[in-house]
Amino acid sequence: MAVYTRVASEEIETFLQQYEVGTLVSAKGIAEGVENSNYLIETTKDRFILTLYEKRVDPEDLPFFLGLLDDLQRAGLPVPPAIKDRHGQQIQQLAGRTACLIQFLPGVSVSHPTPGQAKAAGQALAKMHEATLNYEPRRTNDMGLASWARLANDCGEAELDKIEVGLADIISSELRFLEQHWPKDLTVSAIHADLFPDNVLMLGDEVTGVIDFYFSCTDFTAYDVAVTHAAWCFSDDGSVYQESLSAALMAGYHHARPIMANEFAALPILARGAALRFLLTRAYDWINTPPEALVTRKDPMAFLNRLRFYQNNADAFTL
Amino acid sequence: MAVYTRVASEEIETFLQQYEVGTLVSAKGIAEGVENSNYLIETTKDRFILTLYEKRVDPEDLPFFLGLLDDLQRAGLPVPPAIKDRHGQQIQQLAGRTACLIQFLPGVSVSHPTPGQAKAAGQALAKMHEATLNYEPRRTNDMGLASWARLANDCGEAELDKIEVGLADIISSELRFLEQHWPKDLTVSAIHADLFPDNVLMLGDEVTGVIDFYFSCTDFTAYDVAVTHAAWCFSDDGSVYQESLSAALMAGYHHARPIMANEFAALPILARGAALRFLLTRAYDWINTPPEALVTRKDPMAFLNRLRFYQNNADAFTL
Repeated sequence: MAVYTRVASEEIETFLQQYEVGTLVSAKGIAEGVENSNYLIETTKDRFILTLYEKRVDPEDLPFFLGLLDDLQRAGLPVPPAIKDRHGQQIQQLAGRTACLIQFLPGVSVSHPTPGQAKAAGQALAKMHEATLNYEPRRTNDMGLASWARLANDCGEAELDKIEVGLADIISSELRFLEQHWPKDLTVSAIHADLFPDNVLMLGDEVTGVIDFYFSCTDFTAYDVAVTHAAWCFSDDGSVYQESLSAALMAGYHHARPIMANEFAALPILARGAALRFLLTRAYDWINTPPEALVTRKDPMAFLNRLRFYQNNADAFTL
Repeated sequence: MAVYTRVASEEIETFLQQYEVGTLVSAKGIAEGVENSNYLIETTKDRFILTLYEKRVDPEDLPFFLGLLDDLQRAGLPVPPAIKDRHGQQIQQLAGRTACLIQFLPGVSVSHPTPGQAKAAGQALAKMHEATLNYEPRRTNDMGLASWARLANDCGEAELDKIEVGLADIISSELRFLEQHWPKDLTVSAIHADLFPDNVLMLGDEVTGVIDFYFSCTDFTAYDVAVTHAAWCFSDDGSVYQESLSAALMAGYHHARPIMANEFAALPILARGAALRFLLTRAYDWINTPPEALVTRKDPMAFLNRLRFYQNNADAFTL
């Protein structure tokens, strides 16, 4: 949540000359996104987000992300495409980083979603899936099932047990369970894979933007539903399940794109996987981020709580 | 350079209802300012900066700062006043912090000023001084001469000498010199006291905003000229003096508010003081900021270089 690469305003002015976007009026470093550096840019014509990609985004993945955003925009979804320069290029270099100029979208991220907002998020997710069933580029989900054993190993048993006594065992037995029961042959599309309320801009109950596609990949559409469910339907610390949000999210999705029977049957397992994925990445960040660093460490326990909920409530999903 | 206090968009929406500013359209945490948390807010009517004051700003000083901004705005200067709520209040509480909603100003901070820009900055500084000669509230310069011995002591000789061998001696002998030669009886006004290019918004050669008044205080107007000279007329690392910027800055100032003979005579001493002030605060921050923290540590040597320049070039100031 910081600006990692400082760019002089004179450099931004020169950078913008590659585009037909007017001239620079304002540039503010904004504290958003997955370890990228972002500037909110105002020109004489419009507003944009200038993103410089730091270590977590591999520039080789950008064509997958940007092509997806272009397709979603063409399908009428409120996503922020990367602007093309005078030569049709979207991917640039700036201040030693790969950089894109991205459309600014209005709206705010809600911290305490209402059922109306959860329903709208479900609808938006369903429309995204519908629009990307035939998206040809493919990208492996590098935060998917195949990565979790390595991630648990990288955390280390001793460090996991410092977070919560017995956590290493909980994770390894859950992992064995998921490897045995993970579904096969579900419908695949490009998925967002990180659709937390943070990544949805809203005005009232309307979705005005879906952002931060830097975990998007090719995977089961139903897994994306499970991730979104885990992200939206609990109190922040995972201790309180919010059934009204769950019902609204599922209804919003199902109305816009009917969930198949085999997808519906797989949701309880997929949701356990989604909870484990965020438990593991948060535990890894927790262990590897000094407490005094300015980056906010997100508590992994919030997703252990969700995992336990899904383990004990296979009937949580309703249509 | 980070957002320290996270505020939910729902809280910002409620906060804005105290004002007649329309309803929330966008809120982005921005990485600016002296250890405050800032959000760039867009409403249906206008844009604003929402500032939450963190430890470095004493809420008791806010009436001095805000009254000064109101006076400067009435005098036609491009400064960002704090918006008044429906009851005329400027100072609020939000998320456990003292908070103000502040006018947004266009423009960007230049990193490599041109002489035309230095001239405009000098003019703006002179007009601010002219407008605040009669500003009645007073605030001691808590980063002034009287504070430097304590600051050097807080750094510690051993730690200073780790930055540069002999630095503790250089500082203590400079301090003795300044205490003996510091001018008396110069014209006093409210001064900005931190007018680096960072704190001046520009479009081309026009000053569109002077911001970040959180060091402003009552002190010699000529000391503010000296601070601004040290801030604008060198390469970042202080190794290269830029005579054309100095000439332009001084001409811009002198044209808008003639510098008195006693002020002019005092500038070489005041500039040594200004260089020592930033040398000391940067050294203190350098010593007390872990290198791995996300806050950028600014190199104190950049101001030792300036101090040496002023020690050896008492004739640097021209009119």
